[in-house]
Amino acid sequence: MSAGCNRVIIEEVQPQIDCGRYPAKRIIGDLVTVTAAIFCDGHDRVSGRLLYRSVAEADWRSTPMVPLENDLWCATFTVDKLGEWSYTLEAWIDHLASWSADFKKRLAAQASPHLPYQATNRQDVCLALRSGAFVLDRIAQRSEGLHSELLATTAQDLRRSCELDDLTKYRYPLSDVVIKIARLYPDLTCATRYSRELNLWVDRERARYSTWYEIFPRSTSPQTTHHGTFATLQMLLPSIAAMGFDVLYLPPIHPIGSSFRKGKNNSVTATEDDPGSPWAIGSKVGGHKSIHPQLGTLRDLKVLVAASRDTGMEIALDMAFQCSPDHPWVGEHPEWFVIRPDGSIQYAENPPKKYQDIYPLNFESADWRGLWNALRDVFIYWINQDIRIFRVDNPHTKALPFWEWCIAEIHNEYPDVIFLAEAFTRPHVMYSLAKAGFTQSYTYFTWRNTAAELQQYFEEITKRPLADFFRPNLWPNTPDILHQILQTGGRPAFMQRLILAATLGSNYGIYGPAFELCENLPANPGSEEYLNSEKYEIRHWNRSAEHTLAPLITQINRIRRDNPALHNDHSLHFHSVDNPKILCYSKSSGDNRILVVVNLDPTVEQAGWTNLDLKRLGLHQDDNFELEDLLTDIHYEWYDRRNYVSLRPDVMPAHIFRIRGKPNCDMTLNQAPTQTETLATLPEEDL
Amino acid sequence: MSAGCNRVIIEEVQPQIDCGRYPAKRIIGDLVTVTAAIFCDGHDRVSGRLLYRSVAEADWRSTPMVPLENDLWCATFTVDKLGEWSYTLEAWIDHLASWSADFKKRLAAQASPHLPYQATNRQDVCLALRSGAFVLDRIAQRSEGLHSELLATTAQDLRRSCELDDLTKYRYPLSDVVIKIARLYPDLTCATRYSRELNLWVDRERARYSTWYEIFPRSTSPQTTHHGTFATLQMLLPSIAAMGFDVLYLPPIHPIGSSFRKGKNNSVTATEDDPGSPWAIGSKVGGHKSIHPQLGTLRDLKVLVAASRDTGMEIALDMAFQCSPDHPWVGEHPEWFVIRPDGSIQYAENPPKKYQDIYPLNFESADWRGLWNALRDVFIYWINQDIRIFRVDNPHTKALPFWEWCIAEIHNEYPDVIFLAEAFTRPHVMYSLAKAGFTQSYTYFTWRNTAAELQQYFEEITKRPLADFFRPNLWPNTPDILHQILQTGGRPAFMQRLILAATLGSNYGIYGPAFELCENLPANPGSEEYLNSEKYEIRHWNRSAEHTLAPLITQINRIRRDNPALHNDHSLHFHSVDNPKILCYSKSSGDNRILVVVNLDPTVEQAGWTNLDLKRLGLHQDDNFELEDLLTDIHYEWYDRRNYVSLRPDVMPAHIFRIRGKPNCDMTLNQAPTQTETLATLPEEDL
Repeated sequence: MSAGCNRVIIEEVQPQIDCGRYPAKRIIGDLVTVTAAIFCDGHDRVSGRLLYRSVAEADWRSTPMVPLENDLWCATFTVDKLGEWSYTLEAWIDHLASWSADFKKRLAAQASPHLPYQATNRQDVCLALRSGAFVLDRIAQRSEGLHSELLATTAQDLRRSCELDDLTKYRYPLSDVVIKIARLYPDLTCATRYSRELNLWVDRERARYSTWYEIFPRSTSPQTTHHGTFATLQMLLPSIAAMGFDVLYLPPIHPIGSSFRKGKNNSVTATEDDPGSPWAIGSKVGGHKSIHPQLGTLRDLKVLVAASRDTGMEIALDMAFQCSPDHPWVGEHPEWFVIRPDGSIQYAENPPKKYQDIYPLNFESADWRGLWNALRDVFIYWINQDIRIFRVDNPHTKALPFWEWCIAEIHNEYPDVIFLAEAFTRPHVMYSLAKAGFTQSYTYFTWRNTAAELQQYFEEITKRPLADFFRPNLWPNTPDILHQILQTGGRPAFMQRLILAATLGSNYGIYGPAFELCENLPANPGSEEYLNSEKYEIRHWNRSAEHTLAPLITQINRIRRDNPALHNDHSLHFHSVDNPKILCYSKSSGDNRILVVVNLDPTVEQAGWTNLDLKRLGLHQDDNFELEDLLTDIHYEWYDRRNYVSLRPDVMPAHIFRIRGKPNCDMTLNQAPTQTETLATLPEEDL
Repeated sequence: MSAGCNRVIIEEVQPQIDCGRYPAKRIIGDLVTVTAAIFCDGHDRVSGRLLYRSVAEADWRSTPMVPLENDLWCATFTVDKLGEWSYTLEAWIDHLASWSADFKKRLAAQASPHLPYQATNRQDVCLALRSGAFVLDRIAQRSEGLHSELLATTAQDLRRSCELDDLTKYRYPLSDVVIKIARLYPDLTCATRYSRELNLWVDRERARYSTWYEIFPRSTSPQTTHHGTFATLQMLLPSIAAMGFDVLYLPPIHPIGSSFRKGKNNSVTATEDDPGSPWAIGSKVGGHKSIHPQLGTLRDLKVLVAASRDTGMEIALDMAFQCSPDHPWVGEHPEWFVIRPDGSIQYAENPPKKYQDIYPLNFESADWRGLWNALRDVFIYWINQDIRIFRVDNPHTKALPFWEWCIAEIHNEYPDVIFLAEAFTRPHVMYSLAKAGFTQSYTYFTWRNTAAELQQYFEEITKRPLADFFRPNLWPNTPDILHQILQTGGRPAFMQRLILAATLGSNYGIYGPAFELCENLPANPGSEEYLNSEKYEIRHWNRSAEHTLAPLITQINRIRRDNPALHNDHSLHFHSVDNPKILCYSKSSGDNRILVVVNLDPTVEQAGWTNLDLKRLGLHQDDNFELEDLLTDIHYEWYDRRNYVSLRPDVMPAHIFRIRGKPNCDMTLNQAPTQTETLATLPEEDL
């Protein structure tokens, strides 16, 4: 038998990204739910199984598909290894289940006093029993040992029970254990195998839950006349770790070019003292595998990395694949750059803007293979120095296929490496980078400030299909971005944006000292650049200034740490408030349920009434429930959907509530896709 | 150069059904719009082309992709042949377009009084011109003859214009014609070819727009004691055609079995006079390739088919792949049936219901190949008698892969054949049949009666992806289905349901005489079966009875014929009314715009105010516009969104308005998918 008897169809398999072209992403330890539509013609029943394995395993593991409604089925498996996994499905006609359903209908008809059509008679039931025996015999032949014997014996019993005179004595003849045993031996002769094998990429927990602090090492010297070093940075580790950060992200640590070096405030002329931009990488000292001589030695870095781990933080390096004019590659590999008609090398440009301190790489180079290998080797070099997290600068200006190849090459050997894409660009490109393998991604968060903007954007990025491959990392500020709300909103704006980032996103980060100290002066009116930007000069931050936000940051990071609800994004759900300036949303994980209310107006107190989706909070209608505001330790008694909130931006612009007690009802988030069409009035099928 | 330089990514190609597993459907003459997301890294511009062809053609035809917004592109082509078509895409970096965009920025900067950063100077512009010349030279090399010469000359011109002293004299140097010529010679070395070829199936116009009349030939004798024939049916052709039908659908015309023949009202015992059910196919006279002897000969059928075509109607036959116990196959091919343990053949059953007059076929037969061939040959037989439309009975109880194979086999030689699936079953199965090739499908229309139910259901089935492969055919009644609303709603219910079917659906049908004459008695209270169902007895309909709905049916079919808006479903759009018992919707085709308002309450007058989506009607806000009610010829002046409607069910339960004049604004129905995320506040990219 071949194709003709394969009556079962398998469709709508999830998760699935672009027809299986890209892997979906999960975290180690996750319970992965695979859903599919599985059906056949007529009344027969189908059964199916999920086949899955880590690519390290030779053989498939399998688990039965479980029916949901409307021909949808699901199965789950736990991903207990990092790296690549595969899964697919098989489904077949389950003749025993079909027989069972049929036989039960006959028994039900026999029990019914009103017998339409022809009455069920003894001959019918006997024939049905004999059919069942036949099915069991075939299963017995497929099975072995005691199972085979049991099934064959059961078949015999079915045949013998034909002999009963009294119809009312007929019972459903198969025990649960016989059915379980029978299910071990499906008839796969006519099984349908799903047309594709799908992939998953499994990351470590830090990929989903991370708290980033960005700092320029050169600014960490306690002496204002000195260039900071890894050693001076190391002295700050305890205070940064104490704030609750687990990733310490450093802008590029490589030598900086001299030619066309930028001066303060992006001036095209630098004085002798100007340190230049860390993103203008490379000098005669070295390039992407070298360390800026004023920061320290390779050994100093290793000591820093180890010390950092001791404080519970990982160092993340910034990989910016571009070169200053002084980078060694310019002389060694001119073919890796775009050569202008006059023989000069094309610097970065977006007319009329010129960035003459930077040469972009040419991914259409004849030696693109050499270039790809060299870039991959840069990652490998730092991985060998025990770095496992990379923030990648502007990946959207490098060939997208390069990233897919490079990340796969690295992940093949180091599946624990985390790549953060810093790509502020058009949506398709941002999402393409995530599909290509970037673990986390910067987002449009900085430019989403109203309740409507935030809700629309976050509903999009936390729902499928994006949620299956795109992991947001939310930054209220970066060295490139000082949003207007921080310029004009004062301290309340900083508090609000911090809370939003830290609760809307299981991954978030701050450009540390500038944020802690509420730095908010723009280079020019209307600009998003910082005045006296640390990109172009050393800034000696007084991190113990009285107005520091460090206590609030510490408190919020502790709230994150203590509440697993804030370690995921998929449970994010928005609740209505009748004031358009207030945003309300919740997250959950098991019993842990967090409800956040934020006043988005940094200038004025705002108040309003919530309209909570109680089911999402594990509450029934009419429930009284207690909330604990983790920011103030104040407890509230709330009731049902409508509750009053009022927030003063200058005091505390938000509540971060924990719902006390346990959920009262099933909070199934219903990850499985549902079909909108109801079958409410579908007539009973006749044939 | 190979994969490394392929920087362009192609995604989200539409139309696409199940990752290309199934073809989308179109109608001959349609303009097919293909959309895709096409993008690359950085600032470079992309270009792309659509490759398409009828499978009869050896070579691809191509047409350029045109940019929409947000990295979406589209191209169109006209399908001018029936049958299978293929299409795919290619895209590449368009170096000339990239250069052009770059050069225009330089000129713009030069024109601007405020020059940030470094001023554009003559050297920059000269280098840019030389870069442009280089690009043109490469295109010239790819081109031929006069084109090559022109491009090379233009390149030279660019180089020479370097010599201008005055910056303000620089202009954009390429004429439109040069650009057009250059575009003829794309550099495909690094082009990305989309990973799949996608298919379309193109049907004839009747597949999209058809008006069906179902009639039992045996009931057409003018003499009440006689069994009708093809000849007596032929005498009714003019009156049926005059009502405006174009498909005349006959229940199975084959010999009917005697064993276990059903009597009147589905009685299990038949008297000698009972004709039995036409769906109990086969006797010793013959089976699926034979004609019931009382209906006539093959020649009579051919005469009927020809006569029907002369009146503008096509005959559609009913293919019911099941057998009465007397069917020749039972003796010739017992292996095509399910044999019960006692050696008897399994009849159709849904315990406790028995249908002993029918043996279902066994698609798990060891001789499934023989069975498949025999069934396909049944279709071929009737196709050879000039039948090109088949209504298929209960296809969902036959193996779904069989249909995909069988329809493809037939369409390969007869692409004009139309298959209507009568499958009242679960949504996945219904849609799977449509994907597998069924041209049209019965729907849940009969069980959708309230405004909310109708709107939800029709929005689902007229939107993509369903709209790309599922063609609804709406039946207010069938010989199996007399819905309660017709039982209790009286004549107004019939009028309402007719208008709904005929305007919501570009394909619709009625079980003719029963509908015309408002037959509404159920077999039992709560049943959807007709009393004295024509399935089990001959019914002599008095089609000229005074209460006939024929005049209204005629008028409605004429409205359909005269208004192309009603020949498609994709333009269906619902408009709000503030009365939940009134449904309001529109369709359009070019300037032809039809607005329907239906009172769904058959008992009582209903009134309310509309809230029209004016753009969908080609109207501006504040527009006055004139409507003509095609049912009454009354004209109305309406204004803007809110207008009053009031409908008496006993007089006329609906308006079918035609909007007079021409559309005032672009009514683009925006078939292309849009991305919800706005880029409103995306910062300008620096690098």
